[in-house]
Amino acid sequence: MKKIIIVPDSFKGTMSSVEICGIVESGIKDIFPGAQTVKIPIADGGEGTVDAFLAAAGGRKVIVRVKDPFFKDIDSFYGILPDGNTAVVEMAAASGLILAGEGKNPWLATTYGTGQLILDALDKGCRRIIIGIGGSATNDAGIGAAAALGVRFLDGSGCSVPLNGSGLGLIRDIDVTMRDRRLDNCEIIVACDVSNPLYGPDGAAYIFAPQKGADAGMVEKLDAGLRNFAAVVKEKLGGSIDDIPGTGAAGGLGASLIIFAGAKLRSGIEILLDTVKFEEIASDADLIITGEGKIDRQSLGGKVPVGIGRRAKKCGVPAIAIVGNIGDDIEDLYEMGINAVFSTAAKPVPFEEAVKTCREDLYRAVKSIMRFARAMKL
Amino acid sequence: MKKIIIVPDSFKGTMSSVEICGIVESGIKDIFPGAQTVKIPIADGGEGTVDAFLAAAGGRKVIVRVKDPFFKDIDSFYGILPDGNTAVVEMAAASGLILAGEGKNPWLATTYGTGQLILDALDKGCRRIIIGIGGSATNDAGIGAAAALGVRFLDGSGCSVPLNGSGLGLIRDIDVTMRDRRLDNCEIIVACDVSNPLYGPDGAAYIFAPQKGADAGMVEKLDAGLRNFAAVVKEKLGGSIDDIPGTGAAGGLGASLIIFAGAKLRSGIEILLDTVKFEEIASDADLIITGEGKIDRQSLGGKVPVGIGRRAKKCGVPAIAIVGNIGDDIEDLYEMGINAVFSTAAKPVPFEEAVKTCREDLYRAVKSIMRFARAMKL
Repeated sequence: MKKIIIVPDSFKGTMSSVEICGIVESGIKDIFPGAQTVKIPIADGGEGTVDAFLAAAGGRKVIVRVKDPFFKDIDSFYGILPDGNTAVVEMAAASGLILAGEGKNPWLATTYGTGQLILDALDKGCRRIIIGIGGSATNDAGIGAAAALGVRFLDGSGCSVPLNGSGLGLIRDIDVTMRDRRLDNCEIIVACDVSNPLYGPDGAAYIFAPQKGADAGMVEKLDAGLRNFAAVVKEKLGGSIDDIPGTGAAGGLGASLIIFAGAKLRSGIEILLDTVKFEEIASDADLIITGEGKIDRQSLGGKVPVGIGRRAKKCGVPAIAIVGNIGDDIEDLYEMGINAVFSTAAKPVPFEEAVKTCREDLYRAVKSIMRFARAMKL
Repeated sequence: MKKIIIVPDSFKGTMSSVEICGIVESGIKDIFPGAQTVKIPIADGGEGTVDAFLAAAGGRKVIVRVKDPFFKDIDSFYGILPDGNTAVVEMAAASGLILAGEGKNPWLATTYGTGQLILDALDKGCRRIIIGIGGSATNDAGIGAAAALGVRFLDGSGCSVPLNGSGLGLIRDIDVTMRDRRLDNCEIIVACDVSNPLYGPDGAAYIFAPQKGADAGMVEKLDAGLRNFAAVVKEKLGGSIDDIPGTGAAGGLGASLIIFAGAKLRSGIEILLDTVKFEEIASDADLIITGEGKIDRQSLGGKVPVGIGRRAKKCGVPAIAIVGNIGDDIEDLYEMGINAVFSTAAKPVPFEEAVKTCREDLYRAVKSIMRFARAMKL
């Protein structure tokens, strides 16, 4: 066992992907001290996305003072990868639910700070910007972010509307004359793993606003605002965003990034794996280890292990998944490049018990697999 | 993966060793259809011992009519191995708690039937007799079995005492003139994994009689009977059995087998592994798979995986344990020839849930390990 790639998703509610990488690496090194390990923590676009990219690809963190979801100044951050051209922005770091605390309120929350992060990356010369949009506190269709990049949203009297959920319904016109022209020469990639439309029963307000603090009445008003925004975009700019899947993610931020920044939506894991040139790194590995909290039929729909398995197969490298919970009907996974699945569970105990020992259990599971490999003289 | 030895203990309360062998074999064959598998189910000397030996070594089952624990006629059995010289007797098949049902009573239960099984094996020409003594209903110090083999236990008036727990305190003399002389040319091996003495606080009555149906008063009387038996043996035959570890197993049956049949006590697994010539079978294997319900510090004291590990190490063949529950502090196992330990647990669920899926879980765990081996091109 000379080279092992460690590329796990987080175990939701128990361990971050970065933490898992570290534990798996220790387990490997205990048994194969001479093995080379490559850690590629996977982030889902939410909190931890910048750290994951920096851990996997290298680069530096830039600290910037921006507006938080309620227009207060905070120190936020984004990452610049070693090419100096690629920035990784995590909207949760400026407009995240985690910053809202007890005061979460999607009627008032803005994505303005996220726009400021993008602006700073442009100022630093970045022309490829990856934006993770998980964990947002907002439902402003991204008008806050767009405003930070020079777009103006005007009411019936030609005044700027509030740059939050409450402003959406007031928009009557959109002025793009001051939009930052550097965006035209930029590749903006939104890491997005949901396919909800902007509005309607599956849209941003109905599906995501309740967890951001909206009651039924506010949801209805937010949805009406999103509809109005889409209508004005169509009328004034000529582009329809009604049917674009994923525009409903992050309170509609995806919509503005598409309209005003020419963004493309892609699965977060694919962006990361392309960015780190996964195939180049993995092609001479002996083993790829991935994992997630629970693997089941749903995992077949494009979650981390399947994405990894597909690429592992292409490289001709064996891949295994280590998971907290092996669900039913996962046989198809074995056709998708995941050669074997191991559980971290050491004994029959309820979830509340297992959570307490999850780090130790993962460490033990990795060591067992490595011990087996060593005994079989791999 | 060309040849795999499957040699698991039972998973107590869930699966027999024979059943586990079958499941593990299917899992292996699913992934390596061409692999040769050798199944050696392990028995602990209790119920299933004869089947385990016959499954591992071949041979035939002999049916014999004998006395059950309460002197009723039943069809019992023992095994004769292919050499025609070795018999395997399981006392539970004649004098077992399982035969006592609701009427369990160690004051009245006898080992007479077990003696009859031995006698039949002698009649069939067997001169090596392996006796599994787990699961007994008795506390008669083996005087029932000894009586079936010709020994007479006499009270103060020279009459035979009852051949059960109630008779022990009445013994004043022992007449060995009619003892079956064929025993002198026999190797009698008792499969015994406990080291309790015959009487006293760690003896047969105090430790084992309660689970056989004795109340506190009966335990006291049984213990006094065992003491009297040992005293008469010493006085009349000159041998002391006071300090022999293991004589307290099976209600003292070990004591009589030592005194009257020259038996040696050995660990059940060692007897089995020697009988099947384990080293010869295993030395050209690629892998040895063992297992038990729970592996923990206690396992280091000589239970199945350690016994297997020791021999695997001697053969230079990798060995793994698949278990239902990985306990704490098992690191020392890895010094003892067990290269890796895997749990059958697929997810965090309580024991009552896990029991329901234990077969499926074991099957899945074996397949995962084999899939990994296949992917790594073993």
